[in-house]
Amino acid sequence: MTIRRVGLWLIGACGGVGATAALGLAALSRGLSDSTSLVTALPLFEPLHLDEPAQFVVGGHEIRQAGFRQTVRELQKRSNIFEPALADACQEDLQRWEANLRPGTLLNSGPAIARLADRSDLPSDATARHALERIQNDLHDFRARNQLEQVVVINVSSTEAPFETSEIHQSLQRLTAALERRPPPLPASSLYAWAALDLGLPYINFTPSLGASLPALVELAQERRAVIGGKDGKTGETLLKSVLAPMFALRNWRLLSWVGHNIFGNRDGQVLDDPANKASKIRTKDQVISSIVGYKPQTLVSIEYIDSLDDWKTAWDHIHFKGFLGTKMTLQFIWQGCDSILAGPLVLDLARLALFSQRRGEVGVLRHLACFFKNPMDVQEHDFFKQFAMLEEYVKQCGAAKTP
Amino acid sequence: MTIRRVGLWLIGACGGVGATAALGLAALSRGLSDSTSLVTALPLFEPLHLDEPAQFVVGGHEIRQAGFRQTVRELQKRSNIFEPALADACQEDLQRWEANLRPGTLLNSGPAIARLADRSDLPSDATARHALERIQNDLHDFRARNQLEQVVVINVSSTEAPFETSEIHQSLQRLTAALERRPPPLPASSLYAWAALDLGLPYINFTPSLGASLPALVELAQERRAVIGGKDGKTGETLLKSVLAPMFALRNWRLLSWVGHNIFGNRDGQVLDDPANKASKIRTKDQVISSIVGYKPQTLVSIEYIDSLDDWKTAWDHIHFKGFLGTKMTLQFIWQGCDSILAGPLVLDLARLALFSQRRGEVGVLRHLACFFKNPMDVQEHDFFKQFAMLEEYVKQCGAAKTP
Amino acid sequence: MTIRRVGLWLIGACGGVGATAALGLAALSRGLSDSTSLVTALPLFEPLHLDEPAQFVVGGHEIRQAGFRQTVRELQKRSNIFEPALADACQEDLQRWEANLRPGTLLNSGPAIARLADRSDLPSDATARHALERIQNDLHDFRARNQLEQVVVINVSSTEAPFETSEIHQSLQRLTAALERRPPPLPASSLYAWAALDLGLPYINFTPSLGASLPALVELAQERRAVIGGKDGKTGETLLKSVLAPMFALRNWRLLSWVGHNIFGNRDGQVLDDPANKASKIRTKDQVISSIVGYKPQTLVSIEYIDSLDDWKTAWDHIHFKGFLGTKMTLQFIWQGCDSILAGPLVLDLARLALFSQRRGEVGVLRHLACFFKNPMDVQEHDFFKQFAMLEEYVKQCGAAKTP
Amino acid sequence: MTIRRVGLWLIGACGGVGATAALGLAALSRGLSDSTSLVTALPLFEPLHLDEPAQFVVGGHEIRQAGFRQTVRELQKRSNIFEPALADACQEDLQRWEANLRPGTLLNSGPAIARLADRSDLPSDATARHALERIQNDLHDFRARNQLEQVVVINVSSTEAPFETSEIHQSLQRLTAALERRPPPLPASSLYAWAALDLGLPYINFTPSLGASLPALVELAQERRAVIGGKDGKTGETLLKSVLAPMFALRNWRLLSWVGHNIFGNRDGQVLDDPANKASKIRTKDQVISSIVGYKPQTLVSIEYIDSLDDWKTAWDHIHFKGFLGTKMTLQFIWQGCDSILAGPLVLDLARLALFSQRRGEVGVLRHLACFFKNPMDVQEHDFFKQFAMLEEYVKQCGAAKTP
Repeated sequence: MTIRRVGLWLIGACGGVGATAALGLAALSRGLSDSTSLVTALPLFEPLHLDEPAQFVVGGHEIRQAGFRQTVRELQKRSNIFEPALADACQEDLQRWEANLRPGTLLNSGPAIARLADRSDLPSDATARHALERIQNDLHDFRARNQLEQVVVINVSSTEAPFETSEIHQSLQRLTAALERRPPPLPASSLYAWAALDLGLPYINFTPSLGASLPALVELAQERRAVIGGKDGKTGETLLKSVLAPMFALRNWRLLSWVGHNIFGNRDGQVLDDPANKASKIRTKDQVISSIVGYKPQTLVSIEYIDSLDDWKTAWDHIHFKGFLGTKMTLQFIWQGCDSILAGPLVLDLARLALFSQRRGEVGVLRHLACFFKNPMDVQEHDFFKQFAMLEEYVKQCGAAKTP
Repeated sequence: MTIRRVGLWLIGACGGVGATAALGLAALSRGLSDSTSLVTALPLFEPLHLDEPAQFVVGGHEIRQAGFRQTVRELQKRSNIFEPALADACQEDLQRWEANLRPGTLLNSGPAIARLADRSDLPSDATARHALERIQNDLHDFRARNQLEQVVVINVSSTEAPFETSEIHQSLQRLTAALERRPPPLPASSLYAWAALDLGLPYINFTPSLGASLPALVELAQERRAVIGGKDGKTGETLLKSVLAPMFALRNWRLLSWVGHNIFGNRDGQVLDDPANKASKIRTKDQVISSIVGYKPQTLVSIEYIDSLDDWKTAWDHIHFKGFLGTKMTLQFIWQGCDSILAGPLVLDLARLALFSQRRGEVGVLRHLACFFKNPMDVQEHDFFKQFAMLEEYVKQCGAAKTP
Repeated sequence: MTIRRVGLWLIGACGGVGATAALGLAALSRGLSDSTSLVTALPLFEPLHLDEPAQFVVGGHEIRQAGFRQTVRELQKRSNIFEPALADACQEDLQRWEANLRPGTLLNSGPAIARLADRSDLPSDATARHALERIQNDLHDFRARNQLEQVVVINVSSTEAPFETSEIHQSLQRLTAALERRPPPLPASSLYAWAALDLGLPYINFTPSLGASLPALVELAQERRAVIGGKDGKTGETLLKSVLAPMFALRNWRLLSWVGHNIFGNRDGQVLDDPANKASKIRTKDQVISSIVGYKPQTLVSIEYIDSLDDWKTAWDHIHFKGFLGTKMTLQFIWQGCDSILAGPLVLDLARLALFSQRRGEVGVLRHLACFFKNPMDVQEHDFFKQFAMLEEYVKQCGAAKTP
Repeated sequence: MTIRRVGLWLIGACGGVGATAALGLAALSRGLSDSTSLVTALPLFEPLHLDEPAQFVVGGHEIRQAGFRQTVRELQKRSNIFEPALADACQEDLQRWEANLRPGTLLNSGPAIARLADRSDLPSDATARHALERIQNDLHDFRARNQLEQVVVINVSSTEAPFETSEIHQSLQRLTAALERRPPPLPASSLYAWAALDLGLPYINFTPSLGASLPALVELAQERRAVIGGKDGKTGETLLKSVLAPMFALRNWRLLSWVGHNIFGNRDGQVLDDPANKASKIRTKDQVISSIVGYKPQTLVSIEYIDSLDDWKTAWDHIHFKGFLGTKMTLQFIWQGCDSILAGPLVLDLARLALFSQRRGEVGVLRHLACFFKNPMDVQEHDFFKQFAMLEEYVKQCGAAKTP
């Protein structure tokens, strides 16, 4: 019996997150690392028989020249992560997967992202329709050449500026009709999402960019019976917010203010240094607390690019709250996490779970993935533990039926 | 229709926690403070119609001369809490309740606690039996003079040194037979517990002292149809451990080490400065993490007396964990909370819930109170949110039946 | 022999800093507080026989209705400072000094400050010359009515937006000629400075506003033989920068980045929430480090208004530096200081030292006061210890001569 | 003209500090690293023409098998320091210097240190005299075989337990007479010191162990015209104390308490986990503050072994102080430094400066080195900046004369 092979197609493949996910797959396949930090490696998920690392083939779209290996080297040098022996042993896999990289599209992705683009072969897609067709050809080709039973598409590219949707984004028909317009009616992130969903492929948005989060694309997913997950991976400071805020609620302490300052210096940070792109990120980071406690304390979220920190995202949160008889008290935390290291395994978790859902014939937004996202689609719950309970419930229900 | 009156009898009544609970009852009754920090003021508990602050009368045992008013003044002066106007307006209540104070027992409470005793009227109880009888007389008298329908006894006194139990503590019969022995077979905390349970009164142990946590006294509670809760109120750093550790478990991060340094300067701190007494406290603080994550990372807990901090307990926790591909990352938190302000309202919550359980005819250990304790009796679960879910489940079940 | 009486005239008298300085003078005069935090109470200054607290009479300009007593009450209530007994005992002094308050000028002080103004008697000064005359009348009157031998003027008002100077500010003659112009050629802070210097009074700028820091006013000081000190009191985070940066320089560690986030919620914070006013502050906070280490690491300074913190300025600084063989290391500090409490005593120190300098016949910028300021006039040195050595040297020289 | 060659003889050569010093010399000689973190690379020292890295030959005593290369590898693996390319390029130098390693002595070094010893060739020195002779032979041999003009001996071994000196340690004559006694009258650290000084070699004690800090050995140094430096390198938390405490003094703030918790997991930490050895360390760390401020605030210093931190010493300091009008405020810092990386370059600084002093014909304790030590010999000053001024003054005086 031959082993089933599946594809992981990454948008922004060779950024820190994508390269870490790829390196992680290689290292896990080769038994060079344990499964620490893979949520789907918890015993809970055993009954699902999710795809194993060795079954994955990686490919993706990129707008920069750097391949997986160069990004891995950069992360080693600048951020002091990845043991040399481990990274060396995986070079061959990374090189093979680099052959699966294709030029991305800059259509409507904005100046901050365009500044990063240095591939010489980037086509200038004339219209959204041209871009869509090219992307779909790349996906077809990836699947065919690698004999893949399934392919999941995950957006791990830099955050776009907020994109305001309008009437035409409410219906697939109207949006389809606008695909030839200039300027195009969608940002790049949504073109990738469209391309994937239109082919019936699972699509996950790990970023706060628009992606598939508009009615027309949800409609498309329904029509093509594809699954959608997103958005904006909950990796560090926001995860802590969603863990700590419930404590304040259940102890009936009154939050007075919650200040969160984030500093880091990777490429994602460079893009977020553009105020337009930063606005997307802060928007999703700032809603968690009031959603959990049911009122709006004063909140402040900053994200600043500090070159020397590289991929090490450091956050200081100052939480001021009122206790009994009006006494004010304080909790502060300092989080020192490595962005790629935090995000990479979640990408693998999402890939495994999305492929599983597709096999089960699910359609539309995967609400049970809420615990992975800062801004979960179609889910109002931000309490991490309640979100995780949704995932547990899902697994339990799946286990009741036979695994596909 | 006359209003039902209930009694709150505090062991170590005029320490910071007891005085804050008393002041809080007065302030809430008079409408001088909102119910922030009272867990039982959450909408969840409305259907239970718990006793209102105005229904409570306070009394208790003390080994020190200071009354509620003096402790309140000290906390104002040293720890800079309690608004003068609020405290002033409650003087009358506190004074009235001081008439309900009775001398406690030093029998077997150890040298660190004995050093605090400065009441001139402290009887030297010859045996455990003598102490028991005296305590029970005080409780009877309190109830009768104040025409109370129910009385709950809560231990908020300083932490005793660990007391090793033996064979005789396994059965009520054997222990009863030993009540005349010298030295007495029980520490002071257990004598108070015995006295209360023997009268069928609800007993809550807010400290890590032995109290009712031995088979003989659980047997006594069963026999007298009394309820027991405990032990060691989960107020600050340990609460955070029980909130954060589940995140590490669910994200499959590997805890490498968890260091927690606590500094504070109140009377409880003075007692804990005695190595024997400190041992009791550290024991209950240190089990939480491994119980939640299922393995034993290196842990370190220190509690140190720093005079200038008074009641402001400051904790620094350094949490070192391994993420994907072996990368070590760090979370640190700094907690600056006021011990009495944190504990006081929980004492009121426990009083209300214990009185409610007694009215419902419950018997034995109140397992649904686990979320209030560092070391919950008869409950292995330390995850705060799972503990709280037990409480929610209890309330739901009570709501289904009619409130007594 | 009658005691010599001196006047302290505060611009923005009843803000937190001014009110704390006034309360402090009263408390020290009455022996209700020790001299902790008064630099000039160090043994070093004994030989100078500086004016004692009891010799001071306080007055000042204000644009708000609130007097010293109201601000003191607000600080008690909102920021939980000043013991009630101490504040009560000083009410009489504060009330007496409130009779010395006069309406300030809003001329050219910008919208953020104008929003605070609520006095009904604020004159609308038509031109800078009108404002000047009015201010000088107030100063004359203060001196005469209180029979003061000397008066020192200190600006403790909210920070103005940056004011760009031009050619006319380079010479007293040209600027004098422009005093009738509309809009006026100077911001309010400089009008107060002009008024004081023109009368030969010592003038100290405790804020980053323009004040006397322009050639024309330094020229005026020379002409009138007046002394000038400033600017921007070094109270908290910046003080720490000027203390820690020298360590990095002397240990030859390479600063990579220095991030400083400041949060607080007093009136000064409200004004700084206006981007224009904030710019003045950040400018003086951000030059310290590079001036000390001799190169420019990446720096970031934020100041944010967080209402619940009131006067408690909390700063988190993250200092990233390179050590031996390229290893990056980190120092972080968290500063929790009360702004008024930090600044108030420095105002008294500066008043005492400026009056002393005037008595000695000094003229122009008092360079030896550099250690008190974020942005010391005419001094490039930002190393706190080298600045303090300048003050020590000054005291030594004064001690050599006879005290005036 | 041939280049002058000098020897650096390290006691405990292949611990983290020694190995880092050796690697640093190699890397600097080969131009693979800049001189960041070398104090003696500051422009101040240029006129002294100190020995350059390329002039140094390294050797030393060890009780463990591991050589420089193995320790470097361990530090790379466990503590994630030293770029692979840099370390690889220096292997040849390290290997060559390993040929200069000789077995150390365990005589009187205590059980915690003895547990580390795993060299098979460790002689069991019968008496102090035997050990002394053997050590001196090793030093002679090192000098002769490498044709070294000078050799400096630096103790970088693990901290011994406190050793109580008595009457016989007050005079060289009496102590010499006791050299055959059993147990020996000196700990191992002092035997190395004796051996060096007796040969007229400069001796530096980078640890808190006894070393040369007893009258008899100072007498020996005088007699042999040797120089002594020490003791206990001031690398991290204590350095910060000596930088920050002067600020509190000069601002006339009253220190209430200063708590410092240190956690780390290297071999030195293992030894300090023994209460006896820890006592030596805490003793030198705890005197700095009161010495600077002139009174004794409550202080607490803890040092705990946390395995996962390896060489990364993390310190949390909580500084509680009283400001104006009795207001309590707080400064906290968190220091995350790598012990070897901090200490290594200071060892090189001390080697260079000690060799220079010897060439100038200085004799006895080098008081101008105080800024390098937690517990400077013969110097009461702990203020880092005043200590550094002593060094500056020394350099200035040397510059006035011609360099030897």
